[in-house]
Amino acid sequence: MAQKPTIPKGTRDFSPIQMAKRNYIFNTIKDVFLLYGYQQIETPAMENLSTLMGKYGDEGDKLLFKVLNSGDYLRKVPDELLADKDYIHMISHISEKGLRYDLTVPFARYVVMHRDELQFPFKRYQIQPVWRADRPQKGRYREFYQCDADVVGSDSLVNEVELISMIDEVFGRFGVNIVIKVNNRKVLSGIAEVIGAPDKIVDITVAIDKIDKIGIDNVNAELSEKGLSQDAIDQLQPLLTLSGTNDEKLATLDGLLAASEVGKKGIEELRYVLGHVAELGTKATVELDVSLARGLNYYTGTILEVKACDVEMGSITGGGRYDNLTGVFGMPGTSGVGISFGADRIYDVLNTLDLYPADTISSTRVLFINFGEKESSASLRYVMQLRAQGISAEVYPDSAKMKKQMNYANSKHVPYVAMVGENELASGTVALKNMETGEQVSMTIDQVIEKLK
Amino acid sequence: MAQKPTIPKGTRDFSPIQMAKRNYIFNTIKDVFLLYGYQQIETPAMENLSTLMGKYGDEGDKLLFKVLNSGDYLRKVPDELLADKDYIHMISHISEKGLRYDLTVPFARYVVMHRDELQFPFKRYQIQPVWRADRPQKGRYREFYQCDADVVGSDSLVNEVELISMIDEVFGRFGVNIVIKVNNRKVLSGIAEVIGAPDKIVDITVAIDKIDKIGIDNVNAELSEKGLSQDAIDQLQPLLTLSGTNDEKLATLDGLLAASEVGKKGIEELRYVLGHVAELGTKATVELDVSLARGLNYYTGTILEVKACDVEMGSITGGGRYDNLTGVFGMPGTSGVGISFGADRIYDVLNTLDLYPADTISSTRVLFINFGEKESSASLRYVMQLRAQGISAEVYPDSAKMKKQMNYANSKHVPYVAMVGENELASGTVALKNMETGEQVSMTIDQVIEKLK
Repeated sequence: MAQKPTIPKGTRDFSPIQMAKRNYIFNTIKDVFLLYGYQQIETPAMENLSTLMGKYGDEGDKLLFKVLNSGDYLRKVPDELLADKDYIHMISHISEKGLRYDLTVPFARYVVMHRDELQFPFKRYQIQPVWRADRPQKGRYREFYQCDADVVGSDSLVNEVELISMIDEVFGRFGVNIVIKVNNRKVLSGIAEVIGAPDKIVDITVAIDKIDKIGIDNVNAELSEKGLSQDAIDQLQPLLTLSGTNDEKLATLDGLLAASEVGKKGIEELRYVLGHVAELGTKATVELDVSLARGLNYYTGTILEVKACDVEMGSITGGGRYDNLTGVFGMPGTSGVGISFGADRIYDVLNTLDLYPADTISSTRVLFINFGEKESSASLRYVMQLRAQGISAEVYPDSAKMKKQMNYANSKHVPYVAMVGENELASGTVALKNMETGEQVSMTIDQVIEKLK
Repeated sequence: MAQKPTIPKGTRDFSPIQMAKRNYIFNTIKDVFLLYGYQQIETPAMENLSTLMGKYGDEGDKLLFKVLNSGDYLRKVPDELLADKDYIHMISHISEKGLRYDLTVPFARYVVMHRDELQFPFKRYQIQPVWRADRPQKGRYREFYQCDADVVGSDSLVNEVELISMIDEVFGRFGVNIVIKVNNRKVLSGIAEVIGAPDKIVDITVAIDKIDKIGIDNVNAELSEKGLSQDAIDQLQPLLTLSGTNDEKLATLDGLLAASEVGKKGIEELRYVLGHVAELGTKATVELDVSLARGLNYYTGTILEVKACDVEMGSITGGGRYDNLTGVFGMPGTSGVGISFGADRIYDVLNTLDLYPADTISSTRVLFINFGEKESSASLRYVMQLRAQGISAEVYPDSAKMKKQMNYANSKHVPYVAMVGENELASGTVALKNMETGEQVSMTIDQVIEKLK
């Protein structure tokens, strides 16, 4: 009892100030999602393990939080598994549910399960926590929110254009300068094809993805290690050092990938997307980056990633097109494309750059000091009048020492304090104190309303 | 693979329309919380089992969802427990985390853990899902949202007055007629005292709580069964049939509980709360109901419950004062009072009474039909102009059959459809169709903006 309670490692409580900042982020993103016609869904925190297992690789299977079956969970466990303490094979006997690991697989499950009720293309957004039994470390948590928008059931590149425009709008509202890096998996496939190493596409994308981190020499060394011929590596070089405008890069790619059908298709897609985005105009820099690969191998077309210009930080948003996400649940041939905002990193970026609007953390506009029974009764009537005008107001509940009440006002960043003491009661006025300037003025409640409205 | 995926029993997916309605409910409640100076917090979905166990009774301990430890979870299990298949005692060896069962215990844990950072009184609200391994049935789920507001660190009855006023405001905004039933546990203790059965308080409150359901005769029979003397039961009768205005009821209680200190204190508290609530004025009927007991035995003062007048439904909101919620975590003597809105039941009430505002489920204001490459490029520019004015708009991504595009508009309840075909491209106009009236007018994009703004 004496020991302070704790929470599981890698999880967090969010204080009122943190929540206010997080709400600012989520509400900004939500507003933009709605402006573009995306609709919200929610899925359960627990999914059947059969839905989740095998979707995130072996490592992912291990990192899923599994929920113990209710009641006598040992009833169905074969004796030999118990005797052998075979914790791996026992799992499927004692647990049939796991916690959501991302929003993509539950979304694919949702689409397949509700396919008959849905009108395609289906544009949905989803903002919910996910759980991963990762080793907690700085910036990595076991519970964190994902914030995704996806369209399924349309292979039109209009969706890509719109998603990029949404990203631009969101970060424009935040006031964060960003670069949106765009690439296309088909271009990467084309590259693998023309250098004669189509089976090495995964190795190539993984290596290329590291170019910013480890430099071109190490990437080449890694490619060689992976079995690429020197000839193939030589052919890759111009691509790794591609420069100029997006149009210039596309022209270079035209020449290099002329022999690859898939490569040419990728270039065509990039040209459409980048062309339309340029025509619509963006605050952000939109940059074709052939070194962008993204780790997730379910992407099949456009891929994109967002970096903040003024902060050292990994990708703060990412996404891409996948052609067969629902296939694993028995609904093949449904193309989708989506983006995911990294809420925790965006939170850090806005903190670092001090970009939260001034009113983010203040909720109550005016606090009425409590001078006792009769005075607080009058104050209760006043706050009701203020609230009726949409002004957030409260009465300090106890007739405590002035210092305590003022500390309360300060800790909540309340901009105005109102005092109704004996004199004010007699004259029907309120003494309104501006907490920033210290200025104090006597006025009627109607004047207070006028001022704070 | 062929089989349609499912979700765990007792859990739900929420579709866009359901989400829109739920958001309307949560946003309305949030707005009122903020208007009264309550601040949001969030706590992790998983808590240590040591935090949760023993707080909800034996039944609650069973209904907690337990999360299997990661890695070799059998490593620390004593052999004899495995040999005996002792699933009950094994739990603490293989699971150290559980899913949140309500918002109250995590809040108490939060207050104790962060006591040094908090300024008391602390007024917090919290809207998050909770999980219970209850047998699923109509209206009862294994995952559902709770929506709580509490103040801790103040025993002022101003808080009670404010909470009742908040309830009134919330249901006023919903347009639901309600009765707020109010009682005080101290009055119930006083009753037990004056009838000479102070140890029977739990039996009495449990029995009285059933008066509406089983009638006075059965309540009396139950009290007799529980060991109350006929004399005591006779004394209880006038209380069970108390009638008149709140003031009349309080006057009757004055006489009946004159010999009980705790009873008199309860009456005094009720008089303050009901008096102030009456003075501030409420849309709702606020009614002193001595048969109101509420099951939760941690309540120590005011208790309250809300019923909808025009729908047959259990309590849709409840709450009360508790004097020692944080004591179990080593922080005694902190009084608190709070309310909890039953979101799922409110959802059903608003559905039954058809009280959702007309614009709740429509998100996109105008959909641009896609007539092909050139036309959709123009439409993309138009929707950007609309969005810049805060008007939610989208372009159908594919140049599909008109019927399909119109079905899409209908399924999303889009009120306007815009057409930019060859003629409109040539004349720089947009054909805007009102989906309700069928009326179609040719106008410039500026006129469209003016109309939809």
